[in-house]
Amino acid sequence: MCRWLAYYGDPIPIASLVLRRQHSLIDQSLNSTLGATTTNGDGFGIGWYDEHGGDPGVYRSVHPAWNDRNLRELAEHIRSPLFFAHIRASTGTAVQETNTHPFRHGRWLFMHNGLIREFGRVRRDLLLAVDPELLPEIEGSTDSELLFYLALTFGLEQDPVKALERMAGFVEDVAEEHGIDNPLQTSVAVTDGERIIAVRYSSEGNSRSLYFSTHARVLKEQYPDIEELQTLSDEARAVVSEPLGDLVGAWNEVPESSIGIVQPGQDELQPFTPRRGAAVVASVAR
Amino acid sequence: MCRWLAYYGDPIPIASLVLRRQHSLIDQSLNSTLGATTTNGDGFGIGWYDEHGGDPGVYRSVHPAWNDRNLRELAEHIRSPLFFAHIRASTGTAVQETNTHPFRHGRWLFMHNGLIREFGRVRRDLLLAVDPELLPEIEGSTDSELLFYLALTFGLEQDPVKALERMAGFVEDVAEEHGIDNPLQTSVAVTDGERIIAVRYSSEGNSRSLYFSTHARVLKEQYPDIEELQTLSDEARAVVSEPLGDLVGAWNEVPESSIGIVQPGQDELQPFTPRRGAAVVASVAR
Amino acid sequence: MCRWLAYYGDPIPIASLVLRRQHSLIDQSLNSTLGATTTNGDGFGIGWYDEHGGDPGVYRSVHPAWNDRNLRELAEHIRSPLFFAHIRASTGTAVQETNTHPFRHGRWLFMHNGLIREFGRVRRDLLLAVDPELLPEIEGSTDSELLFYLALTFGLEQDPVKALERMAGFVEDVAEEHGIDNPLQTSVAVTDGERIIAVRYSSEGNSRSLYFSTHARVLKEQYPDIEELQTLSDEARAVVSEPLGDLVGAWNEVPESSIGIVQPGQDELQPFTPRRGAAVVASVAR
Amino acid sequence: MCRWLAYYGDPIPIASLVLRRQHSLIDQSLNSTLGATTTNGDGFGIGWYDEHGGDPGVYRSVHPAWNDRNLRELAEHIRSPLFFAHIRASTGTAVQETNTHPFRHGRWLFMHNGLIREFGRVRRDLLLAVDPELLPEIEGSTDSELLFYLALTFGLEQDPVKALERMAGFVEDVAEEHGIDNPLQTSVAVTDGERIIAVRYSSEGNSRSLYFSTHARVLKEQYPDIEELQTLSDEARAVVSEPLGDLVGAWNEVPESSIGIVQPGQDELQPFTPRRGAAVVASVAR
Repeated sequence: MCRWLAYYGDPIPIASLVLRRQHSLIDQSLNSTLGATTTNGDGFGIGWYDEHGGDPGVYRSVHPAWNDRNLRELAEHIRSPLFFAHIRASTGTAVQETNTHPFRHGRWLFMHNGLIREFGRVRRDLLLAVDPELLPEIEGSTDSELLFYLALTFGLEQDPVKALERMAGFVEDVAEEHGIDNPLQTSVAVTDGERIIAVRYSSEGNSRSLYFSTHARVLKEQYPDIEELQTLSDEARAVVSEPLGDLVGAWNEVPESSIGIVQPGQDELQPFTPRRGAAVVASVAR
Repeated sequence: MCRWLAYYGDPIPIASLVLRRQHSLIDQSLNSTLGATTTNGDGFGIGWYDEHGGDPGVYRSVHPAWNDRNLRELAEHIRSPLFFAHIRASTGTAVQETNTHPFRHGRWLFMHNGLIREFGRVRRDLLLAVDPELLPEIEGSTDSELLFYLALTFGLEQDPVKALERMAGFVEDVAEEHGIDNPLQTSVAVTDGERIIAVRYSSEGNSRSLYFSTHARVLKEQYPDIEELQTLSDEARAVVSEPLGDLVGAWNEVPESSIGIVQPGQDELQPFTPRRGAAVVASVAR
Repeated sequence: MCRWLAYYGDPIPIASLVLRRQHSLIDQSLNSTLGATTTNGDGFGIGWYDEHGGDPGVYRSVHPAWNDRNLRELAEHIRSPLFFAHIRASTGTAVQETNTHPFRHGRWLFMHNGLIREFGRVRRDLLLAVDPELLPEIEGSTDSELLFYLALTFGLEQDPVKALERMAGFVEDVAEEHGIDNPLQTSVAVTDGERIIAVRYSSEGNSRSLYFSTHARVLKEQYPDIEELQTLSDEARAVVSEPLGDLVGAWNEVPESSIGIVQPGQDELQPFTPRRGAAVVASVAR
Repeated sequence: MCRWLAYYGDPIPIASLVLRRQHSLIDQSLNSTLGATTTNGDGFGIGWYDEHGGDPGVYRSVHPAWNDRNLRELAEHIRSPLFFAHIRASTGTAVQETNTHPFRHGRWLFMHNGLIREFGRVRRDLLLAVDPELLPEIEGSTDSELLFYLALTFGLEQDPVKALERMAGFVEDVAEEHGIDNPLQTSVAVTDGERIIAVRYSSEGNSRSLYFSTHARVLKEQYPDIEELQTLSDEARAVVSEPLGDLVGAWNEVPESSIGIVQPGQDELQPFTPRRGAAVVASVAR
């Protein structure tokens, strides 16, 4: 439904990944090859951390990424050590900035590809489960934004892996009550500016694509002639819903039902298991 | 916060009231004289019934009314026997089409000037009171749209006066629980395409301005030399938050805490009394 | 580069052709099958004549047609006996309303699919040839708008066939001076509200597709079971850059280098021959 | 008609002047006190140089500055040692990004407040005088953009003061031929990233307001208690069409018919004298 990428490493212009590559994200906005839809023209957004710290900035627009001149300007001029970029293909909800990813809460960014099936039927129950303190921040009408606020409610800022598993389990709990099968289809990225956490999961075990880039260090050795690679630090990595080119060995598919963490030092990859019954825990916690 | 007008009568181009008059609604978007703000530039909308029946059409835009060329085109080319027009001055919620008036549900249109005080604190309780069948239709984040869905929940389609009084009473009930004084400040118009119902009410008894036009029949006798007036049928009337000119005798201020109904035959004007305790009734009804 | 349709016949809602059909124009905005590009998401426009006469209305937007809610509203509510609809795929010029078709001058509408090759090199000479009285009306930066104003300069309002042939010949004259081969690739529609004139022409004799619908009378006899067809009057016809469905016998390809006129009574179809040397005539005429 | 500001000094967030001050530029978009119009809501733009050099970035939008969230994000996150910001009040030309300031050519930025009187009558002659190599870059329909390309044609990149005087003189020459009195009303800022050149001039000698800030060094001595001032370097300066607050001694009105240059070391201020007959020189030069 959407396409996204997340970058972590030395500060680089956002344009490096969003504009200037073979099958860049802008190219994917017109010609996605792995997405559920070819065209992702219902708005886009970028979120980034400045080199000198602070809360992230967010730029979101309802224009298609391929024809938005401001995106080109900003992507060339904003350098960042950690950024998200997202192109949207609406599954029916309004095309408006508040429905565009990434979503932000304090230092956190969240973006999403996928959907909650029969969202209209479960929306009310999901809204009710959101921490009342957080609810006023919800400005749009998407399932994606609501997933973010559920994850925050379930403790994203304290224990992100657990909170995301509770988020998924809770949606499956509520859907079950309504007799909805396979409710969740999702590839998610969240960040606090220090690490990127990415989930590939669907209730039916047939999830949207998700890839991690090979460590830049490996690629530099493997392709000593590609100048662009040599300028990257060893730590630089990207997580993407669709590879940004066809360099052999550059992209590794994330296994089904996995959660990965890109961070300083050793990355992590582990199974992702929705925690059912989270709703009760959440209610008690409040 | 906003300005609006509602027209009922012979089919006329929407431009007659929105564009082509001294102190038209477009003029008020730049230079409101009675509004809480001078500038109403955070989007606008029109809703209209076709001459040949059917559900109303709605055109909404985030551009200021004064510089939107499409509004000028549509207002000149759309003729309607009953239309609403609204210019918005946001009190903080996002400038997006789904936050722009009029709102629509089936044959009904709703528009609003005013606010719920400390809306963030009561939003959750108000959302919970909305009929779960209706909740998925809420697409924006304004207090205004939520008022509409509360009124629908409380029976707007069956007994509009009672439903609007319950809507107001319920907001006051909830606000009281949260310790918020004088929560409601409002001038509202609703229609089903047959009649226009307009409310002037505020909890503190000091409401936004609201005017009914004098019957065209009276004005035609009074001003036999104004050609424009002579083309109107005797039934034509407008309800406005601010007069569209300074013709003496043309506009009558609606008294505080009143509800008026413009309809075929005799209009009605009666006191508007919020019905407290409506929440319980609504819960029981479901 | 773009897709368009023109309708002439009994008043129908614009939605009949733009929204409600298999492979409607909105469908073509995402999935054009015959166009130079699959996606036509760089804005759209409609132009229409009211049932009761007067100059045409124009609604233009920079949003993709497939996600613009206002287009859906207007298309359902505006009935017209003659309308144009256009979806744009920019070849590089800015995505802005003034670059969006149809263009209007008085009672005339103009829309276009195609391009002038190496437009930047000839733009100045073409601008200089435009009647100085008309020049201030040019608001955008497209080759299409400039073609319209050249046609007007060469007498579109007096003798449209001749003016369009001069327009094409003049562009070829200027391009030849600049050493540009095969400068013109075009399918054009113009109307004064009485008839639709459509041109299929390219300098290299390999033009963008163009189709006329078979007379409704013939289709009604051929498909007595298709209810929708039976409601059309015998005179109803459409001209399209790409068929709106796959009904056998419904669409007739316009031959290369042809100009067709859809009008009351007998339609016309004749060869289209650019008139070279038009520039001189134009200069002399002023 | 518009309001603008230009900043030169240590890198600061654009928000410092555009958002975070008493009577900031965003405040002026709703409540200009010295402008020809109170409301400047027809789009805005920012242009900035990065700390690490290169061509300037430009962000332009058709939304009112006061309600554009992206502007707030970007202004907080973009730090720059030299930036322009502009809010527009259209005098009739279309509200579109290509009509929004600042305009850019290579390393140069240009912005403008004012107008060419009876622009429609002289537009063609002015367009013809633009260097044919530059003409294809003109994308909008404003007098302002055309003034920029005239200045470039007359040698802005080589000798900016002379080129601006020729620009003004040429407009007055052409207007005189058309019998138009007092054609030019203007306050202009241009920059190449090294210095800011600002002109206050009108043919009738009654120009739009223009102010230079007092050297930060002076203000720091004068107001030792204002913390915000103490963080500025001695070199920091702003040029504005309307003061950003009411600090006594902070703003110095630029005299009528003057041109000022803010640059490293000593600033300059000298009389501005349109050079008549420039058209001839320009033609010969090509």
